[in-house]
Amino acid sequence: MDQERILLAHGSGGRQTQELIEKIIYPIFEANGGQPLLDAALLPAPGGAGLALTTDSFVVSPLFFPGGDIGKLAACGTINDLAVVGARPLYLTVGLIIEEGFAVADLKRILTSLAEVAKSAGVSVVAGDTKVVERGNADKLYINTTGIGVVAPGVALGPERIAEGDLIIVSGTVGDHGMTILCQREGLPLEAEVASDCAALHDLARALIATGGISCMRDPTRGGLATALNELAAQSGTVMEISEEKVPVQPPVAAGCGMLGLDPLYLANEGKLLITVRPDCGEAVMSVLVKHPLGKRARVIGRVTGRDGRGKVLLETGLGVRRILPGLEGEHLPRIC
Amino acid sequence: MDQERILLAHGSGGRQTQELIEKIIYPIFEANGGQPLLDAALLPAPGGAGLALTTDSFVVSPLFFPGGDIGKLAACGTINDLAVVGARPLYLTVGLIIEEGFAVADLKRILTSLAEVAKSAGVSVVAGDTKVVERGNADKLYINTTGIGVVAPGVALGPERIAEGDLIIVSGTVGDHGMTILCQREGLPLEAEVASDCAALHDLARALIATGGISCMRDPTRGGLATALNELAAQSGTVMEISEEKVPVQPPVAAGCGMLGLDPLYLANEGKLLITVRPDCGEAVMSVLVKHPLGKRARVIGRVTGRDGRGKVLLETGLGVRRILPGLEGEHLPRIC
Repeated sequence: MDQERILLAHGSGGRQTQELIEKIIYPIFEANGGQPLLDAALLPAPGGAGLALTTDSFVVSPLFFPGGDIGKLAACGTINDLAVVGARPLYLTVGLIIEEGFAVADLKRILTSLAEVAKSAGVSVVAGDTKVVERGNADKLYINTTGIGVVAPGVALGPERIAEGDLIIVSGTVGDHGMTILCQREGLPLEAEVASDCAALHDLARALIATGGISCMRDPTRGGLATALNELAAQSGTVMEISEEKVPVQPPVAAGCGMLGLDPLYLANEGKLLITVRPDCGEAVMSVLVKHPLGKRARVIGRVTGRDGRGKVLLETGLGVRRILPGLEGEHLPRIC
Repeated sequence: MDQERILLAHGSGGRQTQELIEKIIYPIFEANGGQPLLDAALLPAPGGAGLALTTDSFVVSPLFFPGGDIGKLAACGTINDLAVVGARPLYLTVGLIIEEGFAVADLKRILTSLAEVAKSAGVSVVAGDTKVVERGNADKLYINTTGIGVVAPGVALGPERIAEGDLIIVSGTVGDHGMTILCQREGLPLEAEVASDCAALHDLARALIATGGISCMRDPTRGGLATALNELAAQSGTVMEISEEKVPVQPPVAAGCGMLGLDPLYLANEGKLLITVRPDCGEAVMSVLVKHPLGKRARVIGRVTGRDGRGKVLLETGLGVRRILPGLEGEHLPRIC
């Protein structure tokens, strides 16, 4: 990393975030005997059960948006990080950093959202912390949620299990969350309303795992589908080919992207799964998806077509051109989650 | 809670923090089937082992101070929250909220401090998250650390175990961390240097628990010794009497308090234990304390003298007057940790 200062791009979820983590943060903890810091870590626990542990800070702006708020987002985001590693979420902690002067009514509304998602997912909020900083030293409210889940014996998902021939499936339309936040901030005049897809995916993930056909799952949040695909390709050392036309995008999201010159493949999702599936299980998996309220618009968007040491994602565009689809570069939308 | 807006006092660790938690936050999570949010929650885990879980956000200003930095503070604070409930710390997660423009060299230094404390405590940093907010939307760096520990079978500590006759012990001088931060911020001209007492107490706590004579432990951080005593008295429904003269205070801390009209009993500590001890175990416990580098200046400062439904702390002053010692009211020093 050449920079001496942290840039907004270091928080984008794209290449610069990866660089900060790999070049600055990992070495410090590895040198001290730690494991690399993962989105959700799988841990041996006393008694032999497998625990999964994940942490996220939420700094989304605005705090309230169509489809959710920072509280719902925090609970869903943490539950989803556990769900995609095959863990059943059990416990959540909540750390609040509040700007002096924040409205207590808004705090109540946000924590109620968070608690509702937790309750409906069977997750107990068990520990908390509250800090208040002077006016001007935070933007209203930041929330950290850390989640613990338990991994059932026999469940094994991960990029190392992705194989040539695997189908690549996305569980629904992409870019809804990112476009929603963008519209709220920029006042974009879209013809139809867009709402965040913010949702807890534990139930859908469990049903998908039960098919026995899933090799790996991710929730394509910051950096969008393109960045999540690139992470999977790099971690599995595979070539992934997807077809742009098959990726479901809602018309107002596509329209907004057209107006702004953005690509929906890079916009954040907060209620979608990216799934790699054994080729002979494609039908079973699609059948689970389309029957589930959160998977109705699922599509097979591509396939793992080969191996490549560093990993690569190829996109077949609507014009029939095949090009490399890189992960997110820089930052076009800070504080998306 | 009458206020419609969050005040700095809601983050003080004193009465208003308690009020925010009890009147606003608890009811939301209780109504949704959750348990009250504790500093460190004790949880049943798969396989029957007892897990302890704690979360803290650190917003201390300045980030670097004599005796430590925000990274050391974050690791110690979380380890200590686990240690005082009798848990052996195992895993830590780290969530960073970084202000755009923050120096990468400072980030490295801070994370190295954090990693060193974790390593020396045998704790693995296993999951992380990095968010960057625009310049002006955070004050340089905030860190959330969440810790998981395991509770050995047979270990049982808690305010409900505090009994009449128990001795009250503090493991060393009080107010060092609070006065250090104050001096850094206000440029106080003290004759001698003060340094934060920031330290990981897991090893001392384990040795103390092994005596079999401890009924309860706390780390008196925000709100200081007076607030921690009031919490214990309230939670145990006891009357605690302490002698002001017996509470160890370093001379420069006492001098600084004199200059500013502050009471060291309300200043934060980051490497001290407040311990209640069965009367017949006082000598054994004091002997463990004074032999440990972090307990050398331990003192018996008082005793549990009776029961009282709501709990009460009495202070015998240097003048021989006995008065009620309340918990912290308002906020005299925001962002102490």
